[in-house]
Amino acid sequence: MSKSVIFNERDAQFLLYEWLKVDELTQRQRFKEHSRETFDGILDVAKQIALEHFEPHYQKLDANEPRMNADGKVELIDDVKSALDAFSAADLMSAAMDEEVGGFQLPMTVTRAVYMWFQAANASTYAYAGLTTAAAQTLYQHGSQELIDRFVPHMASGRFFGVMALSEPEVGSSLGDLTTRCEPQPDGTYRLFGTKMWISGGDQEISENIVALVLARHAGENAQPGPKGLSLFAVPKFITDDNGDLGERNAITLVGLNHKMGNRGTTNTLLEFGDDKHRPANAQGEPTSGAVGYLIGREGEGLALMFHMMNEARVFVGAAAASVGQRSHLTAVRYAGERRQGRLPQDKGQGGPMVPIVEHADVRRMLLASKSYAEVSVALVMYCSRLQDEAQTAERAEDREAAALLLDVLTPVAKSFPSQYAVKASDLAIQVHGGYGYTRDFPVEQLYRDNRLNPIHEGTHGIQANDLLGRKVAMRGGAGLDLLVRRIAQTCEAAGGGADGAGAGGAGAAAAADTQAWATKLRGAVERAVQVTRKVHGRDSANAALKDAALYLEAMGHIVAAWLWLDMVNTIDGASSTGSDASFYAGKRAAAQYFFEYELPHAMTLLAVMENASDILLDVDPKGL
Amino acid sequence: MSKSVIFNERDAQFLLYEWLKVDELTQRQRFKEHSRETFDGILDVAKQIALEHFEPHYQKLDANEPRMNADGKVELIDDVKSALDAFSAADLMSAAMDEEVGGFQLPMTVTRAVYMWFQAANASTYAYAGLTTAAAQTLYQHGSQELIDRFVPHMASGRFFGVMALSEPEVGSSLGDLTTRCEPQPDGTYRLFGTKMWISGGDQEISENIVALVLARHAGENAQPGPKGLSLFAVPKFITDDNGDLGERNAITLVGLNHKMGNRGTTNTLLEFGDDKHRPANAQGEPTSGAVGYLIGREGEGLALMFHMMNEARVFVGAAAASVGQRSHLTAVRYAGERRQGRLPQDKGQGGPMVPIVEHADVRRMLLASKSYAEVSVALVMYCSRLQDEAQTAERAEDREAAALLLDVLTPVAKSFPSQYAVKASDLAIQVHGGYGYTRDFPVEQLYRDNRLNPIHEGTHGIQANDLLGRKVAMRGGAGLDLLVRRIAQTCEAAGGGADGAGAGGAGAAAAADTQAWATKLRGAVERAVQVTRKVHGRDSANAALKDAALYLEAMGHIVAAWLWLDMVNTIDGASSTGSDASFYAGKRAAAQYFFEYELPHAMTLLAVMENASDILLDVDPKGL
Repeated sequence: MSKSVIFNERDAQFLLYEWLKVDELTQRQRFKEHSRETFDGILDVAKQIALEHFEPHYQKLDANEPRMNADGKVELIDDVKSALDAFSAADLMSAAMDEEVGGFQLPMTVTRAVYMWFQAANASTYAYAGLTTAAAQTLYQHGSQELIDRFVPHMASGRFFGVMALSEPEVGSSLGDLTTRCEPQPDGTYRLFGTKMWISGGDQEISENIVALVLARHAGENAQPGPKGLSLFAVPKFITDDNGDLGERNAITLVGLNHKMGNRGTTNTLLEFGDDKHRPANAQGEPTSGAVGYLIGREGEGLALMFHMMNEARVFVGAAAASVGQRSHLTAVRYAGERRQGRLPQDKGQGGPMVPIVEHADVRRMLLASKSYAEVSVALVMYCSRLQDEAQTAERAEDREAAALLLDVLTPVAKSFPSQYAVKASDLAIQVHGGYGYTRDFPVEQLYRDNRLNPIHEGTHGIQANDLLGRKVAMRGGAGLDLLVRRIAQTCEAAGGGADGAGAGGAGAAAAADTQAWATKLRGAVERAVQVTRKVHGRDSANAALKDAALYLEAMGHIVAAWLWLDMVNTIDGASSTGSDASFYAGKRAAAQYFFEYELPHAMTLLAVMENASDILLDVDPKGL
Repeated sequence: MSKSVIFNERDAQFLLYEWLKVDELTQRQRFKEHSRETFDGILDVAKQIALEHFEPHYQKLDANEPRMNADGKVELIDDVKSALDAFSAADLMSAAMDEEVGGFQLPMTVTRAVYMWFQAANASTYAYAGLTTAAAQTLYQHGSQELIDRFVPHMASGRFFGVMALSEPEVGSSLGDLTTRCEPQPDGTYRLFGTKMWISGGDQEISENIVALVLARHAGENAQPGPKGLSLFAVPKFITDDNGDLGERNAITLVGLNHKMGNRGTTNTLLEFGDDKHRPANAQGEPTSGAVGYLIGREGEGLALMFHMMNEARVFVGAAAASVGQRSHLTAVRYAGERRQGRLPQDKGQGGPMVPIVEHADVRRMLLASKSYAEVSVALVMYCSRLQDEAQTAERAEDREAAALLLDVLTPVAKSFPSQYAVKASDLAIQVHGGYGYTRDFPVEQLYRDNRLNPIHEGTHGIQANDLLGRKVAMRGGAGLDLLVRRIAQTCEAAGGGADGAGAGGAGAAAAADTQAWATKLRGAVERAVQVTRKVHGRDSANAALKDAALYLEAMGHIVAAWLWLDMVNTIDGASSTGSDASFYAGKRAAAQYFFEYELPHAMTLLAVMENASDILLDVDPKGL
């Protein structure tokens, strides 16, 4: 079996072509220049650059994190720039972007697989590119033509990088409370004043320029409290002219770097926009200088645009967690096949040779668990990317709308299931390695530390939970939840349909009985979830309705994961499997079986707990905690 | 409420005096010199030294881990030695040891609380002391008088440190396969040859001498395969004379240090005993020199003695996990009370001030979870220590035997529940801190990294699981499990007994109804556990019986934790609670309620999964993983 230790190529092929049928997309206008050959070609390029330029400095970058030198500049090991140069040179920055701005106009589904190679190889180095792509797309979708011309082509080529500047030292999750101030100027630009924190890639010396997308608040007569008072701006490190040549340094100061548990290679910056604090005010008591910013979209639209961008960012985070989780799993599988220790219980004291630890049932349990978490996490973000393609290019408006709706419901799950369970895959990989896994000689502890970021950024787990239970399953009279339920029912029907022996080339009767039983379990879980959704939405207060949202998110994550496992097994049962494919398919089926037997029952427990729990979370006196 | 941020003093007082009634121990011969005053006195000394000498360099030591210099010596920041000097000077090394060797002869229960201050403050620095105490106790219990005189008083005073040297590069969990060789000498000593790995504290320049307890295998005519061929030796870094003066350097070479994810301050060494590889052999082809070792106990007893020591070490590891988990919880509680962010769901968009995050239901959920994990972990290791005292000093032989038996059954749980769930408390503390928790400016990410060691060392989680399901609940015809079940039943009875309104000063009828309901749930869980135990023990092969042992361990951990929560609530319900005690008791009750509502149901699911699972763990083809 050809299996790279950082990314499962065979699985990616399965997901793209067998399961999600992305080659069918080439019949659509947007992708008509493409073919399976161009898809595979760019995947090969990604593999080569990821393995040759990103993976080799993965541990080195962790051990040599960015520093701010005496001149206030960021110092980074050279490998980061070399890797990103190679990435840009291969036009990967603009893989999904429109041809109009120099993009390759790939489907998002294929692009996701391309980028996952880099998230697996070295998420810290890749983050500079990922943020650039996201910022460029936001500018392209919402900026004026002038703004697009000013920045987007330079970002698509990798000359300029992009970042997002939302959070502030006192405001992280509660974006409506941001205080960074913007002031309109007679020339149509704005001046920004304020401090932004946690800005990933917020400064570096790799790219010629950095375009920060910054949320800021209107003051004076345009002031409005809360989210409505916020606008989004493009704020470059260097002002540029119409040719993209760099001019004056903008008033953005790197105040300091945060030093993190993992993901150390991505600078995490505290930035000051404008110089409220450091320069004298003018005669009117106004500060003399702010950071030059260009409005994106309209005034007051800031948070809406940011959320648009953030939805994509959330799937991106899910993909990062999934990639790192899958690499962790693959690393553990390789180790478990090589490391010998102990004997099976029935052979104890017989003095035979020690067995590879993959022979131990508990190690297999850990590997089946990590496989069932990591691979379905990859599948989930790929599925969401397929929905993006569908929302953008499906022929019928109703299909585009349905895809967008389903994507909207699934986004918190796509962010959180991998952030919880693919991170567990990283944790299990440490455990499979035993003491070796706890040392920095093996990559798994770093994979874990890197992955631990994902339940925190781009909306914590708790925030995703409130988004799912409080908004997504309730919006439009529950239309999103209804659609999800229907899609799951279709998969169950297809699985059950195999039972009469009608279809399914490679699947025997026993296999069909399995999938039928899984479909029954899944139907039961969905029914319970719908019941519990209604029940908690019927409670007196929003706080009472949402208090157990995290359990709901976890339960729904399990239901969605079980659904995708079943759907993938349906695909497998429809395929003929011989040779190395047989063990690939058998492995996928085993992981699905594990998930249905060992994992899905926990969803039922979580739903029961939420249904029956008292109000202890609301009533507990914090003094006693 | 006076609550230190690293250790919950009020809780320790509750556990020691209200719940475990350690003051009653002072009526026994062994502890007759003690009183509550001496107990509290030494706890105060521990607190002072932990806060003044151990905690201040907690983060500094992590950032400045031990290095091996060009002379092959270990370099460590000075703070470690100063802290351990203060510890030794206060006679804490010998707190539980017999007066005969200069010990303070404290009950183990009190000693546990004393040492948990240090495990919470700085587990890496404390480890040097903890290992010394454990090695000294083993020597004292199993060594000859000559060996005791040679080493133990110097270890009790902190002049010499002790370590344990079991694992080898190719042999970790499977100790019967150790290859380090011992050769008897005419003078009754032995010479040892071999490489030992993962030896915590195996070298340092803090103490004058280091006494390693080393497992080695007999060669030649005394050779026996497997565990029976192993003996235990005391192998000092420097040979000492009868006065304890240091003589020649023994043939132990520091080959290298492992660099770890956490617990960085404790050197983790690769040691070579003897010089098989580096010096020429003599004419007979025998190496000329080995490390001088002194036999402990008898030849062939090595593994048995090591397991004796390891049982204590396992409770010790549980205590480390519990202490770090509790500190994590306390740190998160403090942060959640101070950090303001967002508003409650029903107050969104009202523009009011942001609330402390402890007001958010999901943050409360995380804090109740971490409290319910960490505090019951502390309670569990304290309970086990109380059993140690009972096994050693109870008046009736049957009580001593029962305590020893129960301790034996509980040991894998006492090691593993904290290693899994108090580690979760550390994980949740990161999550409560959000982005700040992911930075090294806050201690929680280090607490997590440090705590992550605990499911690995002293027998991995999987090994504890096999020990519990394969040995402990089966031994002596299930006598240990029966005893555990009876003890749980007694607690349930006491909880149910409050329902008729007879007893329970501070507890109202509602509270009594609660505990009665919890008792009913717990009884049901125990019954299921017993059923499932029988069922899996009836399977065809040992491998089939044990394949889901990890789920069993987790389920039994939850049952034991629920039992101890109920038992603690019984104590609370029997107490009068006013003033600050009222919120302390209310908090404990809330954590118990959380555990019964949110956690215990998972035990039922785990048992059901074990009962119903197919043989996928045995049957899966590793090629598909």
